[in-house]
Amino acid sequence: MTVYLVGAGPGDPDLLTVKAARLLGRADVVVHDRLVSPEVLALAPPWAEFIDVGKRRGGSVQQREINAILVDRGSRFDCVVRLKGGDPHVFGRAAEEQIALGNAGIACEVVPGISSAIAAPAAVGIPLTTRLAASGFTVVTAHQDPATDRSLDWEALARLGTTLVILMGAARAVAFRDRLLAGGMDPLTPVAIITDATLPTMRETRLRLGELGDEPVANPSVIVIGAVASLDLRSFASSTTLEVA
Amino acid sequence: MTVYLVGAGPGDPDLLTVKAARLLGRADVVVHDRLVSPEVLALAPPWAEFIDVGKRRGGSVQQREINAILVDRGSRFDCVVRLKGGDPHVFGRAAEEQIALGNAGIACEVVPGISSAIAAPAAVGIPLTTRLAASGFTVVTAHQDPATDRSLDWEALARLGTTLVILMGAARAVAFRDRLLAGGMDPLTPVAIITDATLPTMRETRLRLGELGDEPVANPSVIVIGAVASLDLRSFASSTTLEVA
Repeated sequence: MTVYLVGAGPGDPDLLTVKAARLLGRADVVVHDRLVSPEVLALAPPWAEFIDVGKRRGGSVQQREINAILVDRGSRFDCVVRLKGGDPHVFGRAAEEQIALGNAGIACEVVPGISSAIAAPAAVGIPLTTRLAASGFTVVTAHQDPATDRSLDWEALARLGTTLVILMGAARAVAFRDRLLAGGMDPLTPVAIITDATLPTMRETRLRLGELGDEPVANPSVIVIGAVASLDLRSFASSTTLEVA
Repeated sequence: MTVYLVGAGPGDPDLLTVKAARLLGRADVVVHDRLVSPEVLALAPPWAEFIDVGKRRGGSVQQREINAILVDRGSRFDCVVRLKGGDPHVFGRAAEEQIALGNAGIACEVVPGISSAIAAPAAVGIPLTTRLAASGFTVVTAHQDPATDRSLDWEALARLGTTLVILMGAARAVAFRDRLLAGGMDPLTPVAIITDATLPTMRETRLRLGELGDEPVANPSVIVIGAVASLDLRSFASSTTLEVA
């Protein structure tokens, strides 16, 4: 009897891992987030129990309920799949579920998934890193616990020099812009907003940091900030800007 | 005729994406890095052409050769799979290959993969982010172009407050330690070194930042630096430190 904390990837069912697809195929119970697509859920047997625990607002009480569901089903069924959008440890609160299951003595295994932080830029031709323009990347979320939010050094973030990826940042795009500008980041820094990444409904907007939040940002979106955000390597014409010597 | 730049994931063939496995199964040519495991390569038809372009030292001339191989095979075969360890855009130089193929008018598609930056910590019970201890993560590599290396603000990196993941950092572990300490990072900051992540040969070392590099770091290793690096959520006993209120 094992509870698998499984990353469902960015949306496209083809971007599930082989292991996730196999576990889904033999799941007795599927406990899933709101963001997991119907095509992914369809990989589980029709007789499985499906539990939608998509969180809206006011997280912590509900996280405790999710933990209780996992402990209950994990103690009664052979294969429980807890499906999370993206990767379980990239803002997925998997740690809290691992602890709850550990405390209950229930076996638990984490199966990594493709984070939309990595898949979304690739889907619109943006290289997250390149030898010539970005020596690393940083991923943060706007859905922070207020306590940990204060632990982020915004001035350091603005100065760092890596590509910055913001997940779940739609509602707080203006706050991100203002804090990064206050930290000294150039208002002309390129920004890309990718909504419904890797799905047929995917759309993108390119702008500058100084304009971020002027228009409302749709949900769910991935916001990419940095020199690479102006690139689109899908199209031949724009690629010359990164030409290798 | 398409060249697919495909992430092979961290090593475990189960962590390939469904799409990567399917493309490999119909590949005419597989152009692969040194780090891609034999089990992954075995998914391609035995009659496919396999080209090992694993780079040793002195990169740029050889990258040009790889580009030439991709352009040549891409103009002659239906399905060319360029397999890269982890994700193509996480220090995989996929951008340069996209540009070369674009310049040659050859269709090219990027298929994301699970980066070892995400899979390695998970494999040893480390949550990359948690609501209570890490509000984001930063991934950098020690195999930088000297020009872009200088673009990284080390003091900002030391102050940032996100989990720090270093890829391909084995040979330069001491330099990383010294720069982070000079930037003001606490020498007692927990560090985990994960070697051969997700493979049967995987091993791990836990230490403090001040000790990093005292012992040689094996290759390939993922180095995780930050509060979460002391955790091991695989085991029940140690998990209480992150107990949710």
